[in-house]
Amino acid sequence: MKKIYLDHIAGTPLHPAVLEAMLPYLKGSYGNPQSLHSLGQEALQAIEEAREKVAQLIHAESSEIFFTSSGSEANNFALKGLAFAQQKRGRHIIASSIEHQSVLHSTKYLEKFGFRITQIPVDKHGLIDPADVEKAITEETILVSIMLANGEVGTIEPIGEICHICQAKDVLFHTDAVDAVGNIPVDVKGLGVDALSLAGNQFYGPKGGAALFLRKGMRILPFIDGGIQEGGRRAGTEDVPAIVGLGKAAGLAIQEMDSRMEKVKSLRDRLIEKLPRAIEHTILTGHAEKRLPHHASFCVEFVEGEAMLLNLDMKGIFASSGSACTSRALKASHVLLAMGIDHALAQSSLVFSLIDSITLEDIDYLLEVFPPIIEKLRNMSPLYTQFLEEKKK
Amino acid sequence: MKKIYLDHIAGTPLHPAVLEAMLPYLKGSYGNPQSLHSLGQEALQAIEEAREKVAQLIHAESSEIFFTSSGSEANNFALKGLAFAQQKRGRHIIASSIEHQSVLHSTKYLEKFGFRITQIPVDKHGLIDPADVEKAITEETILVSIMLANGEVGTIEPIGEICHICQAKDVLFHTDAVDAVGNIPVDVKGLGVDALSLAGNQFYGPKGGAALFLRKGMRILPFIDGGIQEGGRRAGTEDVPAIVGLGKAAGLAIQEMDSRMEKVKSLRDRLIEKLPRAIEHTILTGHAEKRLPHHASFCVEFVEGEAMLLNLDMKGIFASSGSACTSRALKASHVLLAMGIDHALAQSSLVFSLIDSITLEDIDYLLEVFPPIIEKLRNMSPLYTQFLEEKKK
Repeated sequence: MKKIYLDHIAGTPLHPAVLEAMLPYLKGSYGNPQSLHSLGQEALQAIEEAREKVAQLIHAESSEIFFTSSGSEANNFALKGLAFAQQKRGRHIIASSIEHQSVLHSTKYLEKFGFRITQIPVDKHGLIDPADVEKAITEETILVSIMLANGEVGTIEPIGEICHICQAKDVLFHTDAVDAVGNIPVDVKGLGVDALSLAGNQFYGPKGGAALFLRKGMRILPFIDGGIQEGGRRAGTEDVPAIVGLGKAAGLAIQEMDSRMEKVKSLRDRLIEKLPRAIEHTILTGHAEKRLPHHASFCVEFVEGEAMLLNLDMKGIFASSGSACTSRALKASHVLLAMGIDHALAQSSLVFSLIDSITLEDIDYLLEVFPPIIEKLRNMSPLYTQFLEEKKK
Repeated sequence: MKKIYLDHIAGTPLHPAVLEAMLPYLKGSYGNPQSLHSLGQEALQAIEEAREKVAQLIHAESSEIFFTSSGSEANNFALKGLAFAQQKRGRHIIASSIEHQSVLHSTKYLEKFGFRITQIPVDKHGLIDPADVEKAITEETILVSIMLANGEVGTIEPIGEICHICQAKDVLFHTDAVDAVGNIPVDVKGLGVDALSLAGNQFYGPKGGAALFLRKGMRILPFIDGGIQEGGRRAGTEDVPAIVGLGKAAGLAIQEMDSRMEKVKSLRDRLIEKLPRAIEHTILTGHAEKRLPHHASFCVEFVEGEAMLLNLDMKGIFASSGSACTSRALKASHVLLAMGIDHALAQSSLVFSLIDSITLEDIDYLLEVFPPIIEKLRNMSPLYTQFLEEKKK
């Protein structure tokens, strides 16, 4: 059976060139970058080259890149490290209500240490109003964290504007750009962000290879205390293969981003146009235009997300019903609820995310096999039966 | 030129069977373990099998294993997570003066949050006296962290005894066993530890694959907040290839530990016996018997560690002068200083660490090329010239 992977927000496959770049560091070049001998030097040089490439991808300087093991770690590092380092200036932090759990739960952690959190609402498209951020800032505010793009509904936030507001009010600004970097152009200097999280497994890089951008001169408490790795800010033996893979993936993204975006966008647009026509009571979630080019998300009324995933799986199609970090929890997405979608509809969420190896045939295959699945599932759904009966009346 | 790697405490190479086990997860099996589709299930199954193997290696249950990205992260997780979770019972923590920096710096971090730290001294062999731990415990003590074996001097600590004391006093006990697990038998149930850190790259596993053992029912604050991975205690997309590699390395260690230990021990004994005879003013550091079987460490008086490393490197031999996590800092080792070794002698430290692919010929090659290196370096050393002149008088 054909296998069509449309769950790239849960992690892309490794690009063959990325694996090829990693393999020497999984074989003969196994030195520890902190070892003083030549095998150590070789590893150190490899991770510094990777740092340079990651910096280039987001228009940063290489000294501003700190490797972490995941986007979640980068978010924890940013939130906790910046909050604790700045707490003498104040203890108020602002985040949106649709942040990734690694941001939201980090703010909950900080609440235990006496920080106060304000959550900014979103509109029905998942968009944040920069004016809401401005209003929420007080004398006590030290940090604002708003994601660049949402992985569950694809909406791209007005980060540039929010950055301006934060700069004017002398408040630090962090953005979780895990779902954006490598998929759309991101320029930390142009935006003016102080800190930004990214993860290689969103753009053909390996799991285990992620990073936090920290603007030069930013005070932050180390997240992993110990040795002198990552300028003493993130201790632990560097995961050389993963870092090298992240660097290679960054280099490829620099070269190929435009063509990748063009390709996935046209396929995504086809899906967004055709799916709601092929299956009634299907709505697009997130913003119609301001969204990630590889991201199409829907609520398919009267059907549970999990049931759709399992039935699609049987047809060789892999999708998700939201963030992989919470999907096994099988709770309604906090993102959809924050957008005003009711609990029942939020349970019918479905996300398709694309990379450039996806073809027109793949999308058409999905459009062909999906409607009968939904028909079958709806016929078994008491909610749908009830809906039809009420409609008859 | 022959290449002889004797810096395994900085990280072992991957065992070919470990790389082989990892490769499918770097290629076709790229699912996210939290994805509900079959590619996700496949990844989930793989990491659960790895968890089972890691548990077996230390006689734990698989639900007691929490994967991390490094031994340093596991130590941070244990120290900070246990301290913050238990702080209502007290705010006093005990650690030894020769702990790894990831433990010591975690205790410094905790001091900022109002915890009080007591450092236990060691004797000239790097041994901790359990009676010192007992004396240091107060009503306020919530946690004792003493390493199982020291990576810089090889000394194995009397963890079983210290554990008994902690149990009797109802104080939690964590051990940093990063340099021990996979190299010597470790039985968490037999010892009675509450938490234990281990890292795969000490026994043929990958960088990026490490774990914290946490006895069932232990309260701990999550280290990375976010998704539901690792029972909600350590969020972030799992590094499936690294975890699978760690699991495979654990499986191999279970099978091969006895033969590996026998082999490295006989070669290490040869080195410990012959090196001080071949080079005068050379002393073994750490305990002569209670030491890791793959570990031989020395101070070679009148010669700087760095100079020895670079000269050995030119002969194809890779060694270290202490912990890789601090070696580039070029400071005298806190471990050697704590053992009462003076500052100058501590700078002349050298560590050789072995794995079972090292041969008798390798050791004999080292014993052949090293004395002339030392002679050359000492002839350039003002300290040595001074010593010789004083001897003449």
